[in-house]
Amino acid sequence: MNIYDVSKKAGVSIATVSRVINGNSYVSEKTRKKVLDVIEEYGYTPNVFARGLGLNTMNTVGILCADSSDPYIARAIFYLQQELRRHNYDALLCCSGYELETKQKYVNLLLSKRTDAIILVGSNFVAADDKKNQYIRDAAKSVPVLIVNAALDGPNIYCSLCNDRHATYQATKSLLNSGHEKILYLYNAKSYSGMEKLGGFLDALNIDSNISDNNNGNIINNDYIQYIHGTIDEVKEHLNSLYKKGLKFDAIVTADDILAIGALKFAKENRLSIPDDLSIIGYNNSILCQCSDPELTSIDNKLETVCINCITTLMGVLQGKEAPLKTVFSAEIVKRDTTRF
Amino acid sequence: MNIYDVSKKAGVSIATVSRVINGNSYVSEKTRKKVLDVIEEYGYTPNVFARGLGLNTMNTVGILCADSSDPYIARAIFYLQQELRRHNYDALLCCSGYELETKQKYVNLLLSKRTDAIILVGSNFVAADDKKNQYIRDAAKSVPVLIVNAALDGPNIYCSLCNDRHATYQATKSLLNSGHEKILYLYNAKSYSGMEKLGGFLDALNIDSNISDNNNGNIINNDYIQYIHGTIDEVKEHLNSLYKKGLKFDAIVTADDILAIGALKFAKENRLSIPDDLSIIGYNNSILCQCSDPELTSIDNKLETVCINCITTLMGVLQGKEAPLKTVFSAEIVKRDTTRF
Repeated sequence: MNIYDVSKKAGVSIATVSRVINGNSYVSEKTRKKVLDVIEEYGYTPNVFARGLGLNTMNTVGILCADSSDPYIARAIFYLQQELRRHNYDALLCCSGYELETKQKYVNLLLSKRTDAIILVGSNFVAADDKKNQYIRDAAKSVPVLIVNAALDGPNIYCSLCNDRHATYQATKSLLNSGHEKILYLYNAKSYSGMEKLGGFLDALNIDSNISDNNNGNIINNDYIQYIHGTIDEVKEHLNSLYKKGLKFDAIVTADDILAIGALKFAKENRLSIPDDLSIIGYNNSILCQCSDPELTSIDNKLETVCINCITTLMGVLQGKEAPLKTVFSAEIVKRDTTRF
Repeated sequence: MNIYDVSKKAGVSIATVSRVINGNSYVSEKTRKKVLDVIEEYGYTPNVFARGLGLNTMNTVGILCADSSDPYIARAIFYLQQELRRHNYDALLCCSGYELETKQKYVNLLLSKRTDAIILVGSNFVAADDKKNQYIRDAAKSVPVLIVNAALDGPNIYCSLCNDRHATYQATKSLLNSGHEKILYLYNAKSYSGMEKLGGFLDALNIDSNISDNNNGNIINNDYIQYIHGTIDEVKEHLNSLYKKGLKFDAIVTADDILAIGALKFAKENRLSIPDDLSIIGYNNSILCQCSDPELTSIDNKLETVCINCITTLMGVLQGKEAPLKTVFSAEIVKRDTTRF
């Protein structure tokens, strides 16, 4: 018996069940009785309930990420933990790695700890193949699931993210508008945001210049869309091999700053002048952008704002308020020295 | 009543109390009775005890750091969490910031959560002024306190660290041996390891060349030891102002890669050739070293090894085994392109 079952049995929304549990006064006596009857009959005692009664509560939220040492994830965890603390909640941190099986295992682990909610950090938790998202929907039957940087529809699932598709679209368009003709796209994750960014890249090429009909027809050929998940040196070597095969490109749009750093190393090794011979755009606007020479133009995906919103939403849910299922913020290009525009 | 008090009242070591609590058989019946009598008389029921009895245990360890978004700290948290998980322990994560007051507050918070132990990550938790370390000793009266990257003597305090002093000594000596004469030292933390690294720098200058007696007498003048806590740009500006005042230096040894990146930016702005005009050495061997151009020579302080050792020690303590109070690993210089040696 979970909050989802209670809402079904009582014929009310999850938010209403939550309101009753938390003693919120905006519930009619009739509805309250209906919900409490179901709870009594089926013996539902979630943490939220326990908290309402002042019993055995953990005031703890599970934070699950693939790898907390990733600079982007590390920042997210910092912001989330700070905000949770401000609301007197603790953060139970787990790192699952990138495999579906271990993600499921860790979600179940956090459920068994009776955390008040689970926050999934990073868009790799949401797969393009929706069957692979069932474990998230299942978890949401027990506790609210919050997702940072990806969107997934479903009851009791709350998403905070940035418009990665539009940001990549704009970055690519800026390159086209400033005279670039052969743009290479590098990505390292087939996650939700990975697909969104790639979509934005394709949008820019299709919409803007209808390239497939003119002489540059091969610009959206697969050669110009490269998946490479690896270290800085591996990214560099991958580009070296494309370059040696004769692939021509005058700009590289990437889905992650680490890819852009690899692209910079490639340019240096091949004596390409940046941004004259080659423009490069990173993603995340991480500290890596300031470490490179020249410094990297990158996309700031407003991570702090997204994380604060995630916790604000969560607090609303736990207090039985109406909370938005999806909140989307706008990203921003931070221009530095690897682009001409 | 805490484990420390039990050990005092019973006249046995903390490890012995722990052994009794965990049902370890290497305790005489007489000692066991003495400890259990004290526990019964004074009503001591710590988590460790509860766990031994299979009651209401959390199997949770509190991890406290100043700022989990710092790349060094982020990696440490990742390794610690992974190792804890392998032993079926959860990690409760808190970020305290750098002020003594908030550090104390968070240690007390973690104690109130009845975590099985507290891990302090980062040497900023241990102050040169020992009065400021009393909150750690106090916490260790209730639960084992583990410290990553700093040393503090005291009962129930277990430290895992790297020999930062010797590493900085060696790095500085390598510079002297390869002909550098005016070496600037940059540091951004007056923490335990901050003072150790500075000590190593001074050791190298004193021992190696007895510099204060020769013409280079001013090399260990205060001008050559600069404290600067700030962003990459602030570090660069600080060096610019020293340079404009006429300070001469042919090498910079730093206590953190971020300082070394600032030094690189300074060199570029002033058209100093690296490593011909200026050698630079970072500390932590973080991913920033590979992002810069030229890539940074840095000191690898074996963070993964230190973190795994921390958890191995902790598990020993919780199982009532003899655990080392202090484990010191050796750091290693990773030579890249910012030094001539």
